[in-house]
Amino acid sequence: MTQNSEKTLVQSQLTHLNVEGEARMVDISAKVATKRQAIAAGQVRMLQTTFEAILAGNAPKGDVLAISRIAGIMAAKQTSQLIPLCHPLPLQKVEVHITPDPELPGFQIRASVITKGETGVEMEALTAVSVAALTLYDMAKGLEKSIEIESIRLLRKSGGKSGDYISSEK
Amino acid sequence: MTQNSEKTLVQSQLTHLNVEGEARMVDISAKVATKRQAIAAGQVRMLQTTFEAILAGNAPKGDVLAISRIAGIMAAKQTSQLIPLCHPLPLQKVEVHITPDPELPGFQIRASVITKGETGVEMEALTAVSVAALTLYDMAKGLEKSIEIESIRLLRKSGGKSGDYISSEK
Amino acid sequence: MTQNSEKTLVQSQLTHLNVEGEARMVDISAKVATKRQAIAAGQVRMLQTTFEAILAGNAPKGDVLAISRIAGIMAAKQTSQLIPLCHPLPLQKVEVHITPDPELPGFQIRASVITKGETGVEMEALTAVSVAALTLYDMAKGLEKSIEIESIRLLRKSGGKSGDYISSEK
Amino acid sequence: MTQNSEKTLVQSQLTHLNVEGEARMVDISAKVATKRQAIAAGQVRMLQTTFEAILAGNAPKGDVLAISRIAGIMAAKQTSQLIPLCHPLPLQKVEVHITPDPELPGFQIRASVITKGETGVEMEALTAVSVAALTLYDMAKGLEKSIEIESIRLLRKSGGKSGDYISSEK
Amino acid sequence: MTQNSEKTLVQSQLTHLNVEGEARMVDISAKVATKRQAIAAGQVRMLQTTFEAILAGNAPKGDVLAISRIAGIMAAKQTSQLIPLCHPLPLQKVEVHITPDPELPGFQIRASVITKGETGVEMEALTAVSVAALTLYDMAKGLEKSIEIESIRLLRKSGGKSGDYISSEK
Amino acid sequence: MTQNSEKTLVQSQLTHLNVEGEARMVDISAKVATKRQAIAAGQVRMLQTTFEAILAGNAPKGDVLAISRIAGIMAAKQTSQLIPLCHPLPLQKVEVHITPDPELPGFQIRASVITKGETGVEMEALTAVSVAALTLYDMAKGLEKSIEIESIRLLRKSGGKSGDYISSEK
Repeated sequence: MTQNSEKTLVQSQLTHLNVEGEARMVDISAKVATKRQAIAAGQVRMLQTTFEAILAGNAPKGDVLAISRIAGIMAAKQTSQLIPLCHPLPLQKVEVHITPDPELPGFQIRASVITKGETGVEMEALTAVSVAALTLYDMAKGLEKSIEIESIRLLRKSGGKSGDYISSEK
Repeated sequence: MTQNSEKTLVQSQLTHLNVEGEARMVDISAKVATKRQAIAAGQVRMLQTTFEAILAGNAPKGDVLAISRIAGIMAAKQTSQLIPLCHPLPLQKVEVHITPDPELPGFQIRASVITKGETGVEMEALTAVSVAALTLYDMAKGLEKSIEIESIRLLRKSGGKSGDYISSEK
Repeated sequence: MTQNSEKTLVQSQLTHLNVEGEARMVDISAKVATKRQAIAAGQVRMLQTTFEAILAGNAPKGDVLAISRIAGIMAAKQTSQLIPLCHPLPLQKVEVHITPDPELPGFQIRASVITKGETGVEMEALTAVSVAALTLYDMAKGLEKSIEIESIRLLRKSGGKSGDYISSEK
Repeated sequence: MTQNSEKTLVQSQLTHLNVEGEARMVDISAKVATKRQAIAAGQVRMLQTTFEAILAGNAPKGDVLAISRIAGIMAAKQTSQLIPLCHPLPLQKVEVHITPDPELPGFQIRASVITKGETGVEMEALTAVSVAALTLYDMAKGLEKSIEIESIRLLRKSGGKSGDYISSEK
Repeated sequence: MTQNSEKTLVQSQLTHLNVEGEARMVDISAKVATKRQAIAAGQVRMLQTTFEAILAGNAPKGDVLAISRIAGIMAAKQTSQLIPLCHPLPLQKVEVHITPDPELPGFQIRASVITKGETGVEMEALTAVSVAALTLYDMAKGLEKSIEIESIRLLRKSGGKSGDYISSEK
Repeated sequence: MTQNSEKTLVQSQLTHLNVEGEARMVDISAKVATKRQAIAAGQVRMLQTTFEAILAGNAPKGDVLAISRIAGIMAAKQTSQLIPLCHPLPLQKVEVHITPDPELPGFQIRASVITKGETGVEMEALTAVSVAALTLYDMAKGLEKSIEIESIRLLRKSGGKSGDYISSEK
């Protein structure tokens, strides 16, 4: 394969790069602004004792999970300033759910984001999940150093020309 | 257990909460500013074809991994604005390494942060890893929707009164 | 009243909470983007001597009031990053007026904001007033510790389906 | 009084201006970094029905007051980016308390901030109060347009060469 | 000329000022959102030895120019937070090119920005060029103190009612 | 020259790159925090008619130059968030001067920054000058499209182990 044809190949695959392989925020001005939604998820795994301490800290009126939810929502609004090639998009909805999971043990996090924009909001949803997880970690890091943030992934995505996506997980 | 004694317990466990269970940025003014380091890691798993496209995009002069490294470094500096109860700290070093891992397949990310401050920089290192991973995801999301960010965790931590920590992973 | 019916009630009243009482940035994607305006006001009360020093500092070419005006305008653009559940909105106009009020003595601040968005800009106008007031306070705090920021409120609001509002003050 | 002597007077009074009356972030490099604390307060007045709706929304596990507390804490960390001539300072503690006040009716807000820096943290405490108040307003603005933020002021201040300050209010 | 007629003149010339000469973010709500593009340029001049060191640092896989490109792209997204009276605009494309210029010696920087908004993106393109130049400077400042950023200017602009502009340079 | 020895050379020259040529925020934790100052300058050249309009707009109480000064001061505080590999530093002083220069015609901008930190503040001073210049451009761009920002450079630098620097310009 000649070097030139390889470049073309790369470009068609990684839209964030131009033919020289250089970073760019790709032109989406020809795309139509439509309603698009993305839902992402992730989990925070910890020791049973840490899990119980957080649940206790969240007992009536405790702020523990609220802090994580709010951090996730605020981070979604910062996405284009954190991820270099993300387009700034209006966000019409951001919601973050955090559910205790005694099996893990730990917490399941899920974020849902809606825009009426020219491109999708996967990164906004994934960023909300990531920062909510980091915030939960921050709350509990005095108790345990081995906490782990796992499986940050896209669950579903709808709207836009490329079609809908639903992850195959059960 | 009376409600009062439980509150005291919670407080001693989750320092980010006061005795009422309310969020606070805890007082560290009595602590001494000393050199502290944290190293965190994580990985991004993807399909073999996606992995190869990124490596190709990173071929001589391609910006792919540079974008992720830089996003991670810049995010470390934003940590206290993303994580609600993190103290703003001076950062004397931030370094992010991204290594292709054909076994995964995907990429291993590692961040190392140093401060001369009154508290540790675990969150800064973990935030750098998370945002570097999200940026790599963003580069490749046009190719694959099932990419997953995994195992964001603390590898080691030194400095400060609470002693050093080295994760038990081999 | 059963707990369930109470939840429904709360939800209908505080749209920033879901039925579980959890924070969310509520979905406005079904609303139409139309021109909306909000005007807010507030005042900064100080001693007569402080008031005169600021007026003197603002004498020909002094930057005193300009600094406050500009801080208010810039803060309006930051509103969605300061107020956790505010939607990021395009702003088509921000204007801040600061008027000396010898009766107070002190300064009257008024901010006017226009968007073409799916929700109103009350918070942007109120944030502009608040930060302009804080900036005026900052200028004068070396002279007096008893300065007070008072009466930050919405004066009027137009556009949107919920109808116009004009405060009843004379 | 000649124009020149007036300039000198202004300068000695408003340290944020140079002799030309121009804005500057004044040089504090000769000052010593010591522990300094500031406590500020403010209140949000609303109708009885609004007050009760917020209290209901904050019923077991509701996030209402947590959102305001966290917004206030995060805003304290943004102070030097909101107030043009504020020095960026390390913050060793930020705490925000919000108390229902049935007499008002409404909420009392109090913020306490500590730095080990070359200048005080009055503006950080006042900014935390202001943004916590704005966030409370934002939560309730769907219920009432006549909410008012009142009496944002410094309660006390300690540390630094200029001596301590305790407001004269009872 | 009377003072009043002068004020009117100023206003018609500097739209960022009201009739009182006070700063404002001018009302563009009556304008139509259309596609608008701006291209800006600038250059960084340095010693021959510095120039060669940067080229060597950018040798296969070096991040030097990538860092500048990315900094420029990210800065374009921050424009309305840096330039006080700039309207926040959606950006549909940002691209930054950096070309070694052995004649200078140094680097030529060019940024191209597209919006679908009510006003142009000259400032976004100029900000991208400026910050890319500053970043290049930062990389090389350990080698040379006499680096100079030169000739930041608008090359062309299209879209909007005021007509297209093409700079007269050859 | 072998590839390995070249790498070592690059590293010693561009401290922002590691031996692999990868971006990093270099470790300065071994350096001592001392007082350091930097002064930078630049100019904005425009047509005579534009120059006169700005001077008129700045006539008694006009905000024109104040806006630029304040934008420059605020930008200095944002430097480490704009320039990817800059260390976040405390800033003890930022001052921006803007002087009309009828010879140019246009404006001379000069920024002076002081830190008590482990590394210098050249980038903070240069960023202040750049953003002050961009803001002046923004004020006048409605009048003229051919404005040019020129000659952004370091005038002097003192403090730190590398010795003082004074530019050779007369």
